[in-house]
Amino acid sequence: MSLLFSHLRVHQVFGANTDVGKTLLTSALVRASATKGKETYYLKPASTGPLSDADDEYVKRYAGDHRNKIKAHCLFRYNEPVSPHLAAKLAQADAASTTPSIPSDDTFIGAIAAYVRECSSRVRISGHMYVETAGGVHSPTLSGTTQVDSYRPLRLPTILIGDSRLGGISATISAYESLTLRGYDVDAVLLFREDYYRNWEFLEPYFGERGLKVGALATPPEKHADAATNFTQTDQWYQKLLSPADSALFDILSHLDERHIRRLEELHSMPRRTLDTIWWPFVQHGLYKNEQDVNVIDSAHGDVFSVFKTSTDKTDSLHTSVLQPQFDGSASWWTQAFGHANPSLTLAAARAAGRYGHVMFPQCTHTPALKLAERLVKSGPGKGWASRAFFSDDGSTGMEVAIKMALRAFSVRDAGGLHDGQDRQKRRDLGILGLKGSYHGDTIGAMDACEEGVYTCEWHEAKGYWFDPPSVSIRKGRIVVSLPPAIASETQDGKADIVGGTVDSTYDVEKRLTTPLADTYRRYITGALEKLSQSSSSTLAALVLEPIVMGAGGMIFVDPLFQRVLIDVVRSRDTHSGRIPGDWQGLPVIFDEVFIGLYRLGFETATSILGVNPDISVHAKVLTGGLVPLAVTMASESIFDSFYNDKKADALLHGHSYTAYPVGCEVANETLGLIEKLSKSDEWLEAQNKWQTAELVEDAQSSSTAPRIWSFWDPSFVNALSHLDVVEEVMTLGTVLAFKVSDNTGGYQSHSAQTILSSIGRAAVDENSSSPVLGGAPYCINYRTLGNIAYFMLSLNTSKAMVRSVEDRIWSALSAHRR
Amino acid sequence: MSLLFSHLRVHQVFGANTDVGKTLLTSALVRASATKGKETYYLKPASTGPLSDADDEYVKRYAGDHRNKIKAHCLFRYNEPVSPHLAAKLAQADAASTTPSIPSDDTFIGAIAAYVRECSSRVRISGHMYVETAGGVHSPTLSGTTQVDSYRPLRLPTILIGDSRLGGISATISAYESLTLRGYDVDAVLLFREDYYRNWEFLEPYFGERGLKVGALATPPEKHADAATNFTQTDQWYQKLLSPADSALFDILSHLDERHIRRLEELHSMPRRTLDTIWWPFVQHGLYKNEQDVNVIDSAHGDVFSVFKTSTDKTDSLHTSVLQPQFDGSASWWTQAFGHANPSLTLAAARAAGRYGHVMFPQCTHTPALKLAERLVKSGPGKGWASRAFFSDDGSTGMEVAIKMALRAFSVRDAGGLHDGQDRQKRRDLGILGLKGSYHGDTIGAMDACEEGVYTCEWHEAKGYWFDPPSVSIRKGRIVVSLPPAIASETQDGKADIVGGTVDSTYDVEKRLTTPLADTYRRYITGALEKLSQSSSSTLAALVLEPIVMGAGGMIFVDPLFQRVLIDVVRSRDTHSGRIPGDWQGLPVIFDEVFIGLYRLGFETATSILGVNPDISVHAKVLTGGLVPLAVTMASESIFDSFYNDKKADALLHGHSYTAYPVGCEVANETLGLIEKLSKSDEWLEAQNKWQTAELVEDAQSSSTAPRIWSFWDPSFVNALSHLDVVEEVMTLGTVLAFKVSDNTGGYQSHSAQTILSSIGRAAVDENSSSPVLGGAPYCINYRTLGNIAYFMLSLNTSKAMVRSVEDRIWSALSAHRR
Repeated sequence: MSLLFSHLRVHQVFGANTDVGKTLLTSALVRASATKGKETYYLKPASTGPLSDADDEYVKRYAGDHRNKIKAHCLFRYNEPVSPHLAAKLAQADAASTTPSIPSDDTFIGAIAAYVRECSSRVRISGHMYVETAGGVHSPTLSGTTQVDSYRPLRLPTILIGDSRLGGISATISAYESLTLRGYDVDAVLLFREDYYRNWEFLEPYFGERGLKVGALATPPEKHADAATNFTQTDQWYQKLLSPADSALFDILSHLDERHIRRLEELHSMPRRTLDTIWWPFVQHGLYKNEQDVNVIDSAHGDVFSVFKTSTDKTDSLHTSVLQPQFDGSASWWTQAFGHANPSLTLAAARAAGRYGHVMFPQCTHTPALKLAERLVKSGPGKGWASRAFFSDDGSTGMEVAIKMALRAFSVRDAGGLHDGQDRQKRRDLGILGLKGSYHGDTIGAMDACEEGVYTCEWHEAKGYWFDPPSVSIRKGRIVVSLPPAIASETQDGKADIVGGTVDSTYDVEKRLTTPLADTYRRYITGALEKLSQSSSSTLAALVLEPIVMGAGGMIFVDPLFQRVLIDVVRSRDTHSGRIPGDWQGLPVIFDEVFIGLYRLGFETATSILGVNPDISVHAKVLTGGLVPLAVTMASESIFDSFYNDKKADALLHGHSYTAYPVGCEVANETLGLIEKLSKSDEWLEAQNKWQTAELVEDAQSSSTAPRIWSFWDPSFVNALSHLDVVEEVMTLGTVLAFKVSDNTGGYQSHSAQTILSSIGRAAVDENSSSPVLGGAPYCINYRTLGNIAYFMLSLNTSKAMVRSVEDRIWSALSAHRR
Repeated sequence: MSLLFSHLRVHQVFGANTDVGKTLLTSALVRASATKGKETYYLKPASTGPLSDADDEYVKRYAGDHRNKIKAHCLFRYNEPVSPHLAAKLAQADAASTTPSIPSDDTFIGAIAAYVRECSSRVRISGHMYVETAGGVHSPTLSGTTQVDSYRPLRLPTILIGDSRLGGISATISAYESLTLRGYDVDAVLLFREDYYRNWEFLEPYFGERGLKVGALATPPEKHADAATNFTQTDQWYQKLLSPADSALFDILSHLDERHIRRLEELHSMPRRTLDTIWWPFVQHGLYKNEQDVNVIDSAHGDVFSVFKTSTDKTDSLHTSVLQPQFDGSASWWTQAFGHANPSLTLAAARAAGRYGHVMFPQCTHTPALKLAERLVKSGPGKGWASRAFFSDDGSTGMEVAIKMALRAFSVRDAGGLHDGQDRQKRRDLGILGLKGSYHGDTIGAMDACEEGVYTCEWHEAKGYWFDPPSVSIRKGRIVVSLPPAIASETQDGKADIVGGTVDSTYDVEKRLTTPLADTYRRYITGALEKLSQSSSSTLAALVLEPIVMGAGGMIFVDPLFQRVLIDVVRSRDTHSGRIPGDWQGLPVIFDEVFIGLYRLGFETATSILGVNPDISVHAKVLTGGLVPLAVTMASESIFDSFYNDKKADALLHGHSYTAYPVGCEVANETLGLIEKLSKSDEWLEAQNKWQTAELVEDAQSSSTAPRIWSFWDPSFVNALSHLDVVEEVMTLGTVLAFKVSDNTGGYQSHSAQTILSSIGRAAVDENSSSPVLGGAPYCINYRTLGNIAYFMLSLNTSKAMVRSVEDRIWSALSAHRR
């Protein structure tokens, strides 16, 4: 991952194109650094062509008087003077060749990182290093991945060598844009001061406006046919660049030094400044007032943050990178689908920004929004029941919209609508039927649909009734359905825990509908609703559920059978006479799939598990792949009709400035496309097969049907966890792993999960060699807990190696606490 | 603006670099089109170098047997074979030259558009047109703007000629990314099937994955020294490409035709599909059920949408572009700062996406968020009072946060906090003090801070008390402060209208504090609050204001003196004994600057007009320049302290998944930087000067101080409007112009403003010659109304020509309704 050393300034050198003088200008920088007395390193990771520019060869040719201060090296060499990916292929095809197989991106970037670290450990006082890439920014590396993508994990600050030839203005700006799209810091643009095309004259103000320093350096001599003459002439050119008469090169050197120092200063100052200015969401600042409490994220790539290391660990030294990889263990608050900084999502955002910026939505339409709406409604989670998509900005606003829809649908049927019939107080008292532990967001309307618990505020007024639901977990290798006392007392044996079955059979809701437990649920719910309708002054107007798992409430894996029966009972109580097919029944049913939807739990939507459709559903988080905010509330035509007439005041008067903004919709479309590809990937198939054949639970039998229920986490690991004494229970679905730490106090205020896992918050130093992080550094884990509940969440494409490694880390931390 | 003709397929041809065979391949396409019997047009907008590739010259050289079917043309020619911007400069510098001055972007793009339209009118049955650009995608045009930006207003579908040389993979991909960043549709990539570097072999799957068609065509012959031989050899190459044996070129042609047809089909189908799937915000679908009610936005640029013309207007013909420019008269629901698709904002979004994607925020920090927070708090609208920034997703969530902050601050001081002291019902009944006509967003908490009016829903429970405020307007050339009856009755003469003064003096709140009117306000407010505290069962806990203008409530320009006095009175009623400097007084004061802030009204924040600071303020909309959603709630340290202790449950338990997402923050930082530049621009200075010296109101006197109060709208136009009988009153500040249409019914349900302006919703055909739209087409105006209130809103950089033209259109529409 990202490398940054305080005493060794490292820059990578990218070319706007091939043959723009990259090696010459890099050599000039190398000489300039050596002239300034710096310990200087030059690395050419991949070199093609018969003459190598690297190693001793390189030093002999270019290092001049400073050979002893310069160390040059090349990692991968190929003879054929073509693009590295082709040179590597040709070398491999050559039967006589002893060239090893084509290095993967992982090997390639690992070798570079290892070499940079090695150099860092050699520097005594202060050094400079230049890593020269091959060809243009998008030239393929050995594996075929293009360079901007392949080097991205290291995110080294960049020098762009501009093109001073005809057409070079374009090549230089486009190369800069490709670098920008990958989030590189371009510290300087260097090019020759060529006086016919004068590209530098155009580029200096162009990049100046964009905050970039441009250095225009004397043109080198034409290549002379005679090697000796060529050498002499080139050397004279170097001398000229390095002479006191021409300050341009040293100006650039100082500028690069200054950028390096500023970056370090910025990182060092960020914790204090953050504590002084930022008001964090969901954080009690009184508990985190020290600089080391601030996690400074310098950049992110894949599932890994690069964080600034404030630690005063004795094992650290000047030679350690001040940036450390940190696994994003909560998928950044449950948003990530493909890891951070995915270039496809970046380009999707850019495409929509370039075509539309934002355009307003009422009475308007645009392709990204329409395509997304159709996709969600017709072939996505709304398939088979939804007819409409309403866009908003986040899960909370999406739920406010859903609640407004449901309340209106109910009040129109119940009493003729918002403006007629019902008195105001009765309307305000309309209640929600839901489950204890629900969470639907932090705007007050969404809060009012939940019980008053930890998440509350002055205006919070819980409106409705919430059942205490049975839940599913794995304990000591066995599946357990735990019943709350009120339900347990209605069973034949009165026991709270029902043990046995497989994960798959537990989620086979259709089959379980005929079990005695289903009858118990039915009886219990029907009875409770009867009692409620007799006793309560308020009217229930909607059933609102987070299907399968209630996230913020503590990763509660609700027994899906209970949710199904609840829906069935509510719908069976329908008394409406004029109903036509497709109309909502009993109460409008809302599925809040903000957290669980779109494969977070391994399936697209809970309708496939519960076997029934909602009337309204909300999606967000994964919807945009984890890049930008967007939410969608889908509704059936029956709900839509409740607002449909010719009175403006009866419309759904809800909207946000950026409703259905093109950037969000385009990123969502890209996300849905990527998910579709992933869902057919070998990685998914492998994980699914493991769960299908797994003896996860000791009394399990492998099922022959394709698993709807599976997890990215290894079944044997989950099983082992469930046997630990410190783990009360564990459960997993899809990307989510959650376990309850044995703790007598419990609840949101508990710190037990935080405490027991604290060792994974630090890097495991001995793991250096086998780190699954690109570039191979020891990594730590950023994890979030909910009181005594610990959870971990993956992207939909987290590498197998990474998952296994995180499992090992969790295992080590918990094993250390064995009683 | 964007051009699209059903019978003439137009493509622009961009090169990945110079000298990649752009002209050869364009010629091949031209010949292929002619071979297929199409009326074929070739346009080279700007040509440099001694040999022109265009016009007869071109046809002679390349058209082969199809001369009579091909029309070729060049618009701007220069002899020097350098980049067009340099060639134009050199030509101008040449004293002997008769070359006119360097064409502006406007002239350049206008000439291209005019030529394309002319060709379209000539086509009898079906034609193809190719517009060949010069050099690479970012090569500067004559003015120096680079091509991708300069051609963007026309947004023609694009063919990218790839680079088949060494380094060409990189050049081709980077060029593609630069095109993507500008929102072009790249329909195909063409390049030579060069067999040593084999770039096509790499690019075909690379672009295939991204949905792009790649055509690899036979390599042309080496250029022969003898012109005749060269001609013959090249001609043979063309023959080969056009021969039935080689289908590659015709495959591409069919693909381009198919893309063209699909695009037209898509546009035609979008209205119906939108009506079938989309649920619009704030729209009564029952009133808009026909296809012509749907505004299909194909793209946007600057202040102009390109919309699909469903009109069946008889003056239209096959020869008219099916896309029409439409001025975005509401700045896309009040969001736009620099017009649509601004490349700086796109790049800012891409930069953050490439560096971070999204990273979670609790206990974390990253540069874009920290920089933005510091900028807002320390040198932006929070300067002098705010110490903290809390991020959320939109104005509504920002206001929910603000309300939660204020209620807690109040309840901590009043009764010891959320969990102690006060009973739950008392907490829920805490009320807001505000103004009638307020609007703070559509989430239910934000709604509850407003009176129940049009914007309501089942759960809406207006909590608090709202004063009917006096307002400012211009009537018949004079400034009028209109008092509501309750206040008018407290003045000496009992009159409702106070006439006189200048706009500037009306907004000189400090001076007006000593007027009798200020005393009246003080007396009235104090009395009302006294009465309230005695009679009401609920306690007022916060003062919430939209300063200066209440937007959604009907563009009410509130008398700023009233708002100031209200704040002063509320603060003077402070009874808290332990107060230290900086503590909030009386009630926490919230400024909702979501709509009015950040120069929407010509000033950064209302604090400069009102002369007092709030304790909490909210910004959104312009904050991100009109690209992506983001809101910030700023608070003073005194508010922050109310949440600060060591109990997690006392923290501000509010957050959204994408809180402080890097893309949003980076775009906001870019926006604030661009605004800073604009605020010193000649355009602003000119508009400001006009208002300073204007005899806007007939009894006005020019003031000598720098105007804090000014407008982008011309004072004489505003004055003239105010004299029209159909206009009851008018008012303007900054980018906003609002007027009330004389209408006895009025209110939100009224359609009078919509009706009276309906003519501007159609293009004014006679304006073709003087259209301020880039590319010069007749334009229509998209405008939003609020009942009998019409308003128009500009970006912060709308061109003077555009503003004058829109003024003319409004004038024409209203004049036609003179009584």
